[in-house]
Amino acid sequence: MSRTFAVIMAGGVGTRFWPKSRGRSPKQFLEILSQGTMIENTLERIGPLVEQDDVFVVTNRQQVDMLRKLVPWLPSEHVLAEPLGRNTAACIGLAALWIERVNPDGMMVVSPADHIVKNPGEFVRILRLALRVAEEKDALVTIGIKPTHPETGYGYIQHAEEEIDRNEYRAEGVYRVKTFAEKPNLETAERFLQSGDFLWNSGIFIMKARVILREIELHLPDLYEQLRDVGKTIGTQVYEQTLEHAYRIIRNISIDYGIMEKAGNVFVVKGDFGWSDVGSWDEVVRLTPTDADGNSLKGRVFSFDSKNNYIDAGNKVVAALGIEDLVVISTDDAILICKKGKSQEVKEVVDFIRRKQMNEYL
Amino acid sequence: MSRTFAVIMAGGVGTRFWPKSRGRSPKQFLEILSQGTMIENTLERIGPLVEQDDVFVVTNRQQVDMLRKLVPWLPSEHVLAEPLGRNTAACIGLAALWIERVNPDGMMVVSPADHIVKNPGEFVRILRLALRVAEEKDALVTIGIKPTHPETGYGYIQHAEEEIDRNEYRAEGVYRVKTFAEKPNLETAERFLQSGDFLWNSGIFIMKARVILREIELHLPDLYEQLRDVGKTIGTQVYEQTLEHAYRIIRNISIDYGIMEKAGNVFVVKGDFGWSDVGSWDEVVRLTPTDADGNSLKGRVFSFDSKNNYIDAGNKVVAALGIEDLVVISTDDAILICKKGKSQEVKEVVDFIRRKQMNEYL
Repeated sequence: MSRTFAVIMAGGVGTRFWPKSRGRSPKQFLEILSQGTMIENTLERIGPLVEQDDVFVVTNRQQVDMLRKLVPWLPSEHVLAEPLGRNTAACIGLAALWIERVNPDGMMVVSPADHIVKNPGEFVRILRLALRVAEEKDALVTIGIKPTHPETGYGYIQHAEEEIDRNEYRAEGVYRVKTFAEKPNLETAERFLQSGDFLWNSGIFIMKARVILREIELHLPDLYEQLRDVGKTIGTQVYEQTLEHAYRIIRNISIDYGIMEKAGNVFVVKGDFGWSDVGSWDEVVRLTPTDADGNSLKGRVFSFDSKNNYIDAGNKVVAALGIEDLVVISTDDAILICKKGKSQEVKEVVDFIRRKQMNEYL
Repeated sequence: MSRTFAVIMAGGVGTRFWPKSRGRSPKQFLEILSQGTMIENTLERIGPLVEQDDVFVVTNRQQVDMLRKLVPWLPSEHVLAEPLGRNTAACIGLAALWIERVNPDGMMVVSPADHIVKNPGEFVRILRLALRVAEEKDALVTIGIKPTHPETGYGYIQHAEEEIDRNEYRAEGVYRVKTFAEKPNLETAERFLQSGDFLWNSGIFIMKARVILREIELHLPDLYEQLRDVGKTIGTQVYEQTLEHAYRIIRNISIDYGIMEKAGNVFVVKGDFGWSDVGSWDEVVRLTPTDADGNSLKGRVFSFDSKNNYIDAGNKVVAALGIEDLVVISTDDAILICKKGKSQEVKEVVDFIRRKQMNEYL
């Protein structure tokens, strides 16, 4: 197999985990569900697939220092700092330029930095399968997660009826992609779940650097042109300046919408490894074990006559008296108290704080 | 009328307002419902009745410095520091010793430091009436509050059927006391309310220093003996030592139980001046105005889709999402989240913290 590179997308600001996630401590830098931050867990998870020197992390300028401190072994030129967030097509295109320079046939494993996987062994097995498909077919390969419930917070991938010959890969679960679907409403999500051929879109992509750049050239020629300008300056003193210029004018478009839906040679490998994108406090609550009263209590929480709460006391003491079904997140300067099931609305809090220009709380 | 002295009882540690009330910031030193602390409000309220130089405050040693800082005009020898809390009989007896030295016929207005009164003008009118009854009849006089609901958190006073001749005092509402009743259960409280002759026990007492000392001699002779030993040393170098010795052995007994229930010459003056002993966060909630959603929000609280909450953000930001009927009190190091109606159980939190010896939170 060709040399494999990892591209970890870590530019998000993660407002959905306010008050823990802030401008300078977004979701991927939080220890939400595990030992270590989500980005450390992500890097550990891809460890068996990629040499450390072949890992790239795409992030934004504000997070570069924090990232270098947290992951000191990352080659410093492999921390790609985007001047602005411009969605996944630009992010993956930029990483592909860097990898192409080293090895045009290099395989890329592209993954968000802020997802969790409960079964990393199975993750590696599925990724190895996806790498083989991507390499042998010069294809764009995505990982589709076997859905467990009619989730409305994820995009979906519908696969073709016919499975790719199992003998070829000595494995099940490789299909051509039929369509990509945006986040559905509940009714549609239930239909997707029943149909049996819809999978959750994990946001994990596997392809050769050369192949994705060719697809960008075909389907997003303006982005391609900007990327090529940037590519020519890698390693020169005008790189930053060229990058900034390019990012100011390139389109904000996702790889799913801009490329995957249009490209011809797109496959999905079905995975079932305890994946979650952990998109809200409610999802953290669902993924956290509870005590006999249904509570998940972190830090110094004194609970009396209270049940089914998720309470993170931070470095404070929290006393809970007679409360139920609440999510409580206490940080140094801000406290969230949220009815379970309402945590999607944390975005509104952040929007409100932004409108009020109380920037110290962002 | 004889010279009038005030005795403000301010020794309580006020665990019921945790996390705001702590060992070094008990209830009487909090600004809970008004501008200024409760003790400042109490002193202001008795202002029209007593000269500043005739005010005594009984407190504990830990609170002396705070009290002097807060009320710099108090004569420093009028801050009586008890070495231990020994309930109201000892507290009032100690103050009576000091007042007797100045003026044996001196009238004492004894009041807790941590109650609120919405109508201070009416309070003064009722107290003046009580002072006249106490002086003319050499009586022990209490103030009974006309009950508005079947409160189970207060003691009650049953007055005799027959009113004291209105012509004598040119005022209504002076009665002999029939019985004192402890805090009742709800059923009993409802019966008290319907009966029409039960009043809330305000803990406010009016009497001559000489008279209360005589009653202590009659009904609590052991306490009287200890107090006399202390009294002999007032103004000497052995006062503190004698006081400490006395307090170590005297009985923990309330003035109601030890004296009032047994004495012969006990009157009650019925008052209706918006009194509350503010015994719990729930009572604070009841006494606080609300906005259109039924919320009382103090400090930087961002409320979304939330109603009927009392939230004090302290110096933090609190975001409330979809919550109802909660009391939230945020302080520097501790947060209380309590279902409305459950705030009596704050005591349990404090007991728990005490058992765990997490003394920094007491």
